Amino acid sequence: MKLIRFGEAGREEPGVVLEDGRMIDASRQFHDYDEGFFAMGGMESLVAWVEDGCPDGDEIPPIARLGPPVDRPSKIVCIGQNYLDHAKESGNELPAEPPIFLKANSAWSGPFDEVIRPRGSTKLDYEVELAVVIGKTAYLVSEEDALDHVAGYSVFCDYSERAFQKEMGGQWTKGKSHDSFGPMGPWLTPAKDVSDPQGLRLWSKVNGELRQNGWTGDMHRKVPYLISYISRFMSLLPGDVIATGTPGGVGMGMDPPRYLTPGDQVIIGIEGLGEMKQRVVQG
Amino acid sequence: MKLIRFGEAGREEPGVVLEDGRMIDASRQFHDYDEGFFAMGGMESLVAWVEDGCPDGDEIPPIARLGPPVDRPSKIVCIGQNYLDHAKESGNELPAEPPIFLKANSAWSGPFDEVIRPRGSTKLDYEVELAVVIGKTAYLVSEEDALDHVAGYSVFCDYSERAFQKEMGGQWTKGKSHDSFGPMGPWLTPAKDVSDPQGLRLWSKVNGELRQNGWTGDMHRKVPYLISYISRFMSLLPGDVIATGTPGGVGMGMDPPRYLTPGDQVIIGIEGLGEMKQRVVQG
Repeated sequence: MKLIRFGEAGREEPGVVLEDGRMIDASRQFHDYDEGFFAMGGMESLVAWVEDGCPDGDEIPPIARLGPPVDRPSKIVCIGQNYLDHAKESGNELPAEPPIFLKANSAWSGPFDEVIRPRGSTKLDYEVELAVVIGKTAYLVSEEDALDHVAGYSVFCDYSERAFQKEMGGQWTKGKSHDSFGPMGPWLTPAKDVSDPQGLRLWSKVNGELRQNGWTGDMHRKVPYLISYISRFMSLLPGDVIATGTPGGVGMGMDPPRYLTPGDQVIIGIEGLGEMKQRVVQG
Repeated sequence: MKLIRFGEAGREEPGVVLEDGRMIDASRQFHDYDEGFFAMGGMESLVAWVEDGCPDGDEIPPIARLGPPVDRPSKIVCIGQNYLDHAKESGNELPAEPPIFLKANSAWSGPFDEVIRPRGSTKLDYEVELAVVIGKTAYLVSEEDALDHVAGYSVFCDYSERAFQKEMGGQWTKGKSHDSFGPMGPWLTPAKDVSDPQGLRLWSKVNGELRQNGWTGDMHRKVPYLISYISRFMSLLPGDVIATGTPGGVGMGMDPPRYLTPGDQVIIGIEGLGEMKQRVVQG
């Protein structure tokens, strides 16, 4: 069973994908997959409802737009330079401590939505990342207890405008936060169904060409470490998203660099967690 | 008329402070001062309700806790090094383009709540800032139109842990985001009642000693420029907060530096917008 949200952007309803591929509307039973849902044990209730055969749940028409599989999170916490090959292509070594930055949650977007190339953008780039969705508040948690705080996993693209990020002074925020720069999906896989989050292939393709082809086992800092580390600096709230860094192969790292332009088709995928597909449009 | 929110943390109700100082419960008429409130013209409805004499509004008991005067925003956008004296005490010149960073909104806090010194903290610091609360979505807005997007102004403290911010690698996020590091209040003053946001004194005091004593007219980049600039990189949503930078006099800038320790009383104020008062506690 996987969690999806469907419908018009900003008005999505919750649903599930069953083992047989049918998509079922869960909106009569569940308000949304949001902070309150995760905080109040919604995941367990949802699993129980599916085991009961989804009573009162209609099938979702296959033409429905899929939104991000959880409601806009309170925050999107991103980890920089967590794979050796990406650190190197960025001109760095692996950092002693994981860089943390926040992506504006107004960038939150669906798995098949268009990605907007901002006005003035010349260096739009993609980064496939394993997304960790928090299930219960995590503050000062140990590595040992960290995975108990995970609701599930999904596919995330940390779209980045490299000139905005690196050539306009100060922090990375300017290059990471544009509307549409944070798509997640196509669904959320419950943590119990991911036997090893460090054992997954992840990839990106641009216009059919394989660009990134990594393995989550190559993360320098693994998921339990990241959750524990972030939780020293802030509380992670239910529904919050951690983007765990990207492997090598981004456009910036090529010689010469190859950035995204309007009309490009970007595919972002992780083994078992699905694929997103986005078209670049000029903003 | 000023906007307040009162009650237990996380369960605040909306209210107003009238010209005569009475505090009136507005919760029978208004759900909360949140993204939807501002987006749907709530501010105008609230002003009209007050002009009608607040029908059906009970007086709020003076013992009520005041929360932040708007609901937790989708994001808190902070501007770095926007006053010459603070840039200098930080070892910098004024930047060519304003540094932007995000503070985790889990740091959102009330004007008289305790500020938590995180475990392991040795360099906890204060920064008084003029807060701008967005009233309608701002994306690619001109400087000329920028102030039309402001709902009101308030007092903000950008609490910062300097070792976490500067000595642990990467971005400033780690030092800016701890729970309780983003108090705002005591109330929100509607924009129409602030004749000149660049004509206000702002100050901070620690244990009664004046530390910062600045003037918003000394901002390097003024409020319309900041709104317009940020809106090139992301949409500002209704209820979002911009913290516009701090003048000189922070603990880090002293020789030797003077950081906050448990038991310290911090007062953060802006002329006409009120004062917050916080006690430092060990986390």
